Amino acid sequence: MTAPLPAAPERGFAEAELVQRTQRAQALMREAGFDLLLLTTEPEVRYFSGFLTPFWQSPTRPWFLLVPRAGKPVAVIPEIGGACMARTWLDDIRTWPAPRPDDDGVSLLTEAIRELAGDAATVGLPMGHESHLRMPLADFQRLRERLPGLDVADATPLVRRLRMVKSDAEVAKIAHVATLVSDAFDQAPRLFRVGMPLVEAFRAFKTACLGLGVDDVPYLVGGAGPGGYDDIISPPGERPLADGDVLMLDTGCTFDGYFCDFDRNFAIGDTSDAARRAYDTLYRATEAGLAAVRPGAACREVHRAMRAVLEADGGATGNVGRFGHGLGMQLTEWPSHAAFDTTVIEPGMVLTLEPAMAYGDGRMMVHEENLVVRDDGPELLTRRAPRALPRIG
Amino acid sequence: MTAPLPAAPERGFAEAELVQRTQRAQALMREAGFDLLLLTTEPEVRYFSGFLTPFWQSPTRPWFLLVPRAGKPVAVIPEIGGACMARTWLDDIRTWPAPRPDDDGVSLLTEAIRELAGDAATVGLPMGHESHLRMPLADFQRLRERLPGLDVADATPLVRRLRMVKSDAEVAKIAHVATLVSDAFDQAPRLFRVGMPLVEAFRAFKTACLGLGVDDVPYLVGGAGPGGYDDIISPPGERPLADGDVLMLDTGCTFDGYFCDFDRNFAIGDTSDAARRAYDTLYRATEAGLAAVRPGAACREVHRAMRAVLEADGGATGNVGRFGHGLGMQLTEWPSHAAFDTTVIEPGMVLTLEPAMAYGDGRMMVHEENLVVRDDGPELLTRRAPRALPRIG
Repeated sequence: MTAPLPAAPERGFAEAELVQRTQRAQALMREAGFDLLLLTTEPEVRYFSGFLTPFWQSPTRPWFLLVPRAGKPVAVIPEIGGACMARTWLDDIRTWPAPRPDDDGVSLLTEAIRELAGDAATVGLPMGHESHLRMPLADFQRLRERLPGLDVADATPLVRRLRMVKSDAEVAKIAHVATLVSDAFDQAPRLFRVGMPLVEAFRAFKTACLGLGVDDVPYLVGGAGPGGYDDIISPPGERPLADGDVLMLDTGCTFDGYFCDFDRNFAIGDTSDAARRAYDTLYRATEAGLAAVRPGAACREVHRAMRAVLEADGGATGNVGRFGHGLGMQLTEWPSHAAFDTTVIEPGMVLTLEPAMAYGDGRMMVHEENLVVRDDGPELLTRRAPRALPRIG
Repeated sequence: MTAPLPAAPERGFAEAELVQRTQRAQALMREAGFDLLLLTTEPEVRYFSGFLTPFWQSPTRPWFLLVPRAGKPVAVIPEIGGACMARTWLDDIRTWPAPRPDDDGVSLLTEAIRELAGDAATVGLPMGHESHLRMPLADFQRLRERLPGLDVADATPLVRRLRMVKSDAEVAKIAHVATLVSDAFDQAPRLFRVGMPLVEAFRAFKTACLGLGVDDVPYLVGGAGPGGYDDIISPPGERPLADGDVLMLDTGCTFDGYFCDFDRNFAIGDTSDAARRAYDTLYRATEAGLAAVRPGAACREVHRAMRAVLEADGGATGNVGRFGHGLGMQLTEWPSHAAFDTTVIEPGMVLTLEPAMAYGDGRMMVHEENLVVRDDGPELLTRRAPRALPRIG
């Protein structure tokens, strides 16, 4: 790899941005009647602190961040994270020598909650859709027993509202990684060839992404098969790519902890008319989605616009359950382009458009782009997929 | 990359192994008085079904696996996973069109629990140390409300007991990836050089690991600094490697969903005597750990053996909280080499030895090997680190 890497946005965030996130949260906490936010998952802790580490891969230790009604968040974390957290804008960092199974932060957390909000506080905790509690359930029950006067309320709407609209700095990171991966997909004719086992095609693509400057390739799925693939979430097997295959790769690569999430389809040599027609339908469905994305529109309208194209072409809509979603610190985030989602689109949202369809004899196809919503509509962050199914070999 | 990749073990598991895991769980369920196991996290679902997908990266959809007292596990999963799950040995796969926030599998799960175990069953759910519940907490509360007669008990000891002892097929996967990463570390003199920003050193290492045949590099942390590093969980920065640095990389790479987890230290040119002494202490502490690992010994004895070397050398023991742990489907698993852990070591356990120490002016050093326990003691899966701090440049 001798070509210079594209200029990357600065890593991290200005303190002013972290302050602003916290103050916006505190304004919403007042509206919701929360005395405190209790956060346990990686993106939430990072959102308010700036704390970025792959160490969350280890499930051993819980991490806690408390956002009080005023002032800076307070970290209650394992000792091993103390030095890294001390480099953030936080001042109040409380650590314990984790792992310590008989009291893995519970006493320290109890004390911190009591000190910051009292014994009878209302604590906002994300408990709703697309959330989970990242601590042992038994420890959470212990916390409730220690603080029986605590009222625990769902903070998902609050966190969702904040995180769905990205700052310019966040958008820049996503845009950067989407550009790098667009470049990697442009290398497809050099990366993939007939006879190559799918697992090696994946390896070549991951290596190309790293070579172009992404930090990591946490997510790569795909499929290949004659005239199409039938599954989009399996890891790659040893079957070699063959003439007539449709190959799809769908990747979430990261830069500075922010994801892109999009896929590309390729015909290996000559493939079926059905596959080319499916591609054309999905391309036009995506165009319809792009036309529907604007501030003030609801996500379900975007879904309806894409679905109308699929239905007009007689396509079944596959099993993905939605036609796109938000993205950012996570591969998938709220909202969903789905019939159930009435979220109103706002400038600064970063969204995927991801129509999927079933066709032929158990085949399916997906097509995906990433965009940021601007005042006047969508701005693509991915380099738009070719108009017709591109051919390799 | 033109050299042939080392022969890899077969992917996946024989059905007989999945049957045996399930039957062993069912025997332990009878002992514990559980009518059903409810599993929500990736390693647990995979352990019993063989279901492997990176799709868990997306936090949007919950997945459930139920292990009844007899017969095959039952999957209650999003439609998008149906095709992939149908390739496993399971027969009973129930899907819903997720995401569906107002009923994201809760009704289907309620019905399945009722059908398999009745309204007043005792359900084992991992709730203890190193576990979490991977579904929205509000949905879990809804489930409890729908099935008020359910007794939910902690299944952590059961899952832990099963997963801690690895099968030959599991060990082969870990051994393979540990060998590949040992090969990658052997390339260090070609990969790293003075003037290279740490982030580029990480990129070069990840690319080397992929080139040698690992599937993914989900975890890479490390540090570099004059005479040592002070933090082992931060992502790499732009600071160039300099003469006199100690460089450390600690990686969890995967093959077929199984991790290795070890690190290596390098001196960039001349570094401090203190760093060389710390390395020597940690090398000898690891030797003491290797001597202490044998079937019948407790993890805390292994910890004590390593600690004794550090203390004899006057080293502070750092902030990692333990001197190693189990590994397998996760980067870190039970048990812990720590004073609190009385787990008795058994043949088939795959463990790290990971003594850490603080030295000098806020510096720390870690040293890590991976091993499998055999009848007569430990068998290293990693190529043992050099006896003295290796020098680059």
